[in-house]
Amino acid sequence: MSELPPSIEWTGDAVRIIDQRRIPATLELRSLTTVEQVIDAIETLAVRGANVIGSAGALGLALGVRAGLDPRLTADRLIAARPTAVNLRVAVERALAASDPLAEALRLIDADRDECRRIGEFGRAELADARRILTHCNTGKLATTGWGTALGVVYAKHEAGEPVTVVATETRPLRQGARLTAWELAESGIDVELIVDSAAAAALATGTIDAVIVGADRIAANGDTANKIGTRALAIAAAHEGVPFYVAATLNAIDVSTSTGAAIEIEQRSGDEVRDGVAASVRVWNPAFDVTPASLITGIITEAGILRPPFAAAIAEALNA
Amino acid sequence: MSELPPSIEWTGDAVRIIDQRRIPATLELRSLTTVEQVIDAIETLAVRGANVIGSAGALGLALGVRAGLDPRLTADRLIAARPTAVNLRVAVERALAASDPLAEALRLIDADRDECRRIGEFGRAELADARRILTHCNTGKLATTGWGTALGVVYAKHEAGEPVTVVATETRPLRQGARLTAWELAESGIDVELIVDSAAAAALATGTIDAVIVGADRIAANGDTANKIGTRALAIAAAHEGVPFYVAATLNAIDVSTSTGAAIEIEQRSGDEVRDGVAASVRVWNPAFDVTPASLITGIITEAGILRPPFAAAIAEALNA
Repeated sequence: MSELPPSIEWTGDAVRIIDQRRIPATLELRSLTTVEQVIDAIETLAVRGANVIGSAGALGLALGVRAGLDPRLTADRLIAARPTAVNLRVAVERALAASDPLAEALRLIDADRDECRRIGEFGRAELADARRILTHCNTGKLATTGWGTALGVVYAKHEAGEPVTVVATETRPLRQGARLTAWELAESGIDVELIVDSAAAAALATGTIDAVIVGADRIAANGDTANKIGTRALAIAAAHEGVPFYVAATLNAIDVSTSTGAAIEIEQRSGDEVRDGVAASVRVWNPAFDVTPASLITGIITEAGILRPPFAAAIAEALNA
Repeated sequence: MSELPPSIEWTGDAVRIIDQRRIPATLELRSLTTVEQVIDAIETLAVRGANVIGSAGALGLALGVRAGLDPRLTADRLIAARPTAVNLRVAVERALAASDPLAEALRLIDADRDECRRIGEFGRAELADARRILTHCNTGKLATTGWGTALGVVYAKHEAGEPVTVVATETRPLRQGARLTAWELAESGIDVELIVDSAAAAALATGTIDAVIVGADRIAANGDTANKIGTRALAIAAAHEGVPFYVAATLNAIDVSTSTGAAIEIEQRSGDEVRDGVAASVRVWNPAFDVTPASLITGIITEAGILRPPFAAAIAEALNA
């Protein structure tokens, strides 16, 4: 098995990313040297995954400041590149508030790596008996600067020598599950089984799935969670079958200024992502995310431990600790 | 708007079908002149849809008898082409039992057309207030020899001048919703909105969907229903949101020799349908169908009227009428 290059890194004069649109066909590294290029990479999903777009945003701000651009305007443009994931805003604002934005961006990247490892270990302890884990989209080495969030739990189990199989949903329309999750797990020698998104309910009904773990793009103060479109369907089906449903995320995905999921802005993307040969006259509704109500979530796995219902209190406590 | 050619017809010496694999790119008619060609067309989904594969099977038997093949062996081979939909078996057995298999096949095709129209009218009366209907896969003019089953209700509403919008799921892996349903509805001037399968729960959560209507490949004696993979997820999500969930099917989709859904054989198809560029080393679980428990079904719309819970009694009564 091969070692993946970092999902994102600072080369001294550029932000180097893996172009995630090309995987699995090609592992192509791209160097971004301007704020424009960083924004474009975020908007076009060349770099995607809540945590790593936070890293890209912070490094993008550092690039802008070095180029003499207005810091506040640059920050606002970077934050607007994707509206739902709160990590992007948090990371850009932190870099903006720092005396040395580049140093702060690099510190955030290191912190993300450490937080992913702690998520992995907390999740491993929580799910010691789980051998078959169903997940959605991609929340691993490509989506963070470390092990990942939901997949961090899987990597922690694997590193500890515990048997683990991942049932990965394809994740239409952009197929991050099929293209990225299946690929990075296979590269790491972890057993993976791919299903279409709509087969998850049938997979859960077999009684062979021990837990569902997903990531988060934004968690409201009450625990309602915005994540990749399809997450809500998984949570409803898991509840129907009595399978535990976990969210795994770094604490910076929690936005206490968002009281409930109803207040989360959901990014609408082009219908062309879905059409694939269908006539352009056919209307498409293509939200990138949906909201899973806190009532369907068993626990939120964070670097500070497992948050449990009632989530409003657990979240307030974790953030004030 | 254009008039579609028949989904299947007898030309005097061949079975002419629309090659559904080519739609929407090309409307290509194919003439099948041997039992082998009919079996191949069914297995490769050139002809698909529970009702129309029944028609193809019956005409295939007629072709075989005319060619001097053993009727029973030919029937068994046709029935084995796809294991889940019971319409195929029913239609082939009826043609086999008839003194003139061809005449019986043609009679079944006419009956299917009439039954679809009755389903449409019963459904229209049942769902008089429903303006936005979510459906899965393709159950319309391509899937039957008439209006269709679930889409029959939509065509009946449209013909009656009632406003109706169809929210059509893409239906991975073979995208029958995107390729076939969106296409045939647009051809008929009916408003259609396409979503990825996993967006259905979010669509249902908006409160703008009045009903879900799906087809059926086999209905057990207790009402458990096998249908396209993803149907179960829709039924669970619809129940969660309080949206009525209907199955629309001709009575020959009911198999009283199957006591419950647990006894229904689910066809497993090649993982290559899902991989699309993913390494062949990645395992794929690709069931073509799943089973929706009767407890999640509001009603079954048939040519004999709406069957309602408890379904075991309603089914027994409808079949003995």
